[in-house]
Amino acid sequence: MKIIDADHAATTKLSPGALKAMMPYLTDCYGNPSSTHPLGQEAARAVVLARETIARCLHALPWEISFTSGGSESDNQALRTGAAWGRKQGKRTIITSVIEHHAILHTADALEKEGMTVVRLPVGKEGILHPEQVARAISDDTCLVSIMAANNELGTLQPVAAIGRICRDKKILFHTDAVQAAGHIPIDVTQWSVDLLSLSAHKFHGPKGIGVLFARSGIEPAPLILGGEQERGRRAGTENVPAIVGLAAALEEASLCMAENARRVASLRDMLEAGLLSLPGVRCNGDRQNRLPGTTNLTFAGIPSETLLPLLGMAGICASAGSACASGSLLPSHVLKAIGLSDEEARSSIRFSLGEEITCEDISYMIQTVKDAMIRIRPMEKEEKKG
Amino acid sequence: MKIIDADHAATTKLSPGALKAMMPYLTDCYGNPSSTHPLGQEAARAVVLARETIARCLHALPWEISFTSGGSESDNQALRTGAAWGRKQGKRTIITSVIEHHAILHTADALEKEGMTVVRLPVGKEGILHPEQVARAISDDTCLVSIMAANNELGTLQPVAAIGRICRDKKILFHTDAVQAAGHIPIDVTQWSVDLLSLSAHKFHGPKGIGVLFARSGIEPAPLILGGEQERGRRAGTENVPAIVGLAAALEEASLCMAENARRVASLRDMLEAGLLSLPGVRCNGDRQNRLPGTTNLTFAGIPSETLLPLLGMAGICASAGSACASGSLLPSHVLKAIGLSDEEARSSIRFSLGEEITCEDISYMIQTVKDAMIRIRPMEKEEKKG
Repeated sequence: MKIIDADHAATTKLSPGALKAMMPYLTDCYGNPSSTHPLGQEAARAVVLARETIARCLHALPWEISFTSGGSESDNQALRTGAAWGRKQGKRTIITSVIEHHAILHTADALEKEGMTVVRLPVGKEGILHPEQVARAISDDTCLVSIMAANNELGTLQPVAAIGRICRDKKILFHTDAVQAAGHIPIDVTQWSVDLLSLSAHKFHGPKGIGVLFARSGIEPAPLILGGEQERGRRAGTENVPAIVGLAAALEEASLCMAENARRVASLRDMLEAGLLSLPGVRCNGDRQNRLPGTTNLTFAGIPSETLLPLLGMAGICASAGSACASGSLLPSHVLKAIGLSDEEARSSIRFSLGEEITCEDISYMIQTVKDAMIRIRPMEKEEKKG
Repeated sequence: MKIIDADHAATTKLSPGALKAMMPYLTDCYGNPSSTHPLGQEAARAVVLARETIARCLHALPWEISFTSGGSESDNQALRTGAAWGRKQGKRTIITSVIEHHAILHTADALEKEGMTVVRLPVGKEGILHPEQVARAISDDTCLVSIMAANNELGTLQPVAAIGRICRDKKILFHTDAVQAAGHIPIDVTQWSVDLLSLSAHKFHGPKGIGVLFARSGIEPAPLILGGEQERGRRAGTENVPAIVGLAAALEEASLCMAENARRVASLRDMLEAGLLSLPGVRCNGDRQNRLPGTTNLTFAGIPSETLLPLLGMAGICASAGSACASGSLLPSHVLKAIGLSDEEARSSIRFSLGEEITCEDISYMIQTVKDAMIRIRPMEKEEKKG
């Protein structure tokens, strides 16, 4: 059975180009970059080159790039860096939104327990924050604003450049969680006026287990992991050289093909969306204009995702009820609740996130499969409600 | 030029078997283990199997194994887990030694700033702690003892089983940093009476960027990275599936060949040591009995390692002046200072750490190369001292 991956927001397949770039570092060039001998220096050179490539893709400087184990670690470190920076200046308020990833929300909760104040801005049904909300929330006590570039469940793009300008004017740090955005929409840390930015390689066909924390020159990341002097003291632990090389290759590849891929994927996503919206009781969640090219989040009224998803899975279609990171959770999605859905609606919603390999035939098959599944499920659900 | 890797303590080459085990997860089986669809579940199964394999190798239970990004992260999390456990019981003292890795020592420093008390036990010239030192240091305020299984610079083995029994009797948590030991000497978490144990895959021919934190049932690891519910809330972030699979394969492989490899490597290490000790002004550091099979640490009187190592490097021999993690540091090794060496002696010391692929010819070549280099360096050094 052909597997159709409509869950690119959860993870993506390592690109053959990135794997090829990694192979020497998974085999003969296995040195520790901290070693001063030939084996080590060969590995160190690879890390230098990767850092330069990544900096170029983000319009950053090489020394502004440090490596982490992934998006969650980058988010944790970014928030703790903003909090440490704030404490030094006697400022203790962090502004974020209710639709951030749990790596942000749970770290914010922890910082609150440690004495920081956290303001969580709401969003309307379009799932997009307004820059004026941020402007109004800022006080003399604010040290950090953390707003994601693209939401992981809705795909909605947040007005990061406008928020960045507001923060820069007020001399407040601005962090953006660009884990879903990187590789899919252009990132320019200067144009966005960000001080801190997180990304994760496996969301754009890079390897798992590697991420980046961008920190503008002059902002010293507060280390989360202490020990050796790797990453100039910003993160202890032997550098994951193959993964670093793979991240750089995947980001460069994604940057080169971004516009073309986005156009193609968005048109197929629109086709899928149109087909599914024509079915009874299907609604689209969040703004349909300002969105990642591959993502659509749909509510299937009266059809729990825990019933529909396994039927899709049996037909080889991989999609998701919200973020993979929260899939163990029994709670309805905090993002869908935030844009006004009831618990039942949130539990009847599915995220489709498409990638470059999707075809027109896949889309037709997906629409037909969902249609067939709905016909099978709806009577069952009615029976259950009667019973 | 043939490269002779005599720096296995810094990192090791990924074993072909581990790479082979990883390849499916670097290519087609790329799912996110948190996803409930077929792609995700295939990845989740791989993580379950890997966890079982690792547990078996350590004589632990699968749910006692959680994954981290490497040894440093495991060490940080272990110490913070012990501190959190202690605080709940009103106990604030951590006992460790002066020869631990910086991932332990710097985390201990940070915990001290946060209100914990840290006792750092000294060692004698043999570089081995005595269990009675630990017993004497324990007070009613002690919550955690953290002593490494094998020292990374000397290779000396610490009496972890005896220390573990003392801690168990006193109802104190015992952590061991087994980063250098894992894959090289047998580990049995029950026999060692450890509550927390750290290891890192790339030290035993597994991939970089992955480690394990063992935490005995009933000891809940304090999460260092917050966010999703991965690893049952112990560590947020998408699981690094290929690396997890590679770690398990490498650990299993190392366990199977351990006794045979150790015998062979130790005899070649002894040959190297005998050859170098026969040269004028060469001394061996630390206990020569209770040691990792591949490691020897030698002082070359009057010959700075920063002069000798580049000459060895030019001849294709990779060795190290202490730990790779500290190689950016200008300070002399804290381990060599702790066993009584002067700054000058510490700066004239080299660690050779051999692996399974070393041959008898390599050893002869190494001895001859060091001999030739010493003849070249000694007159230069004398000239410089005169001038």
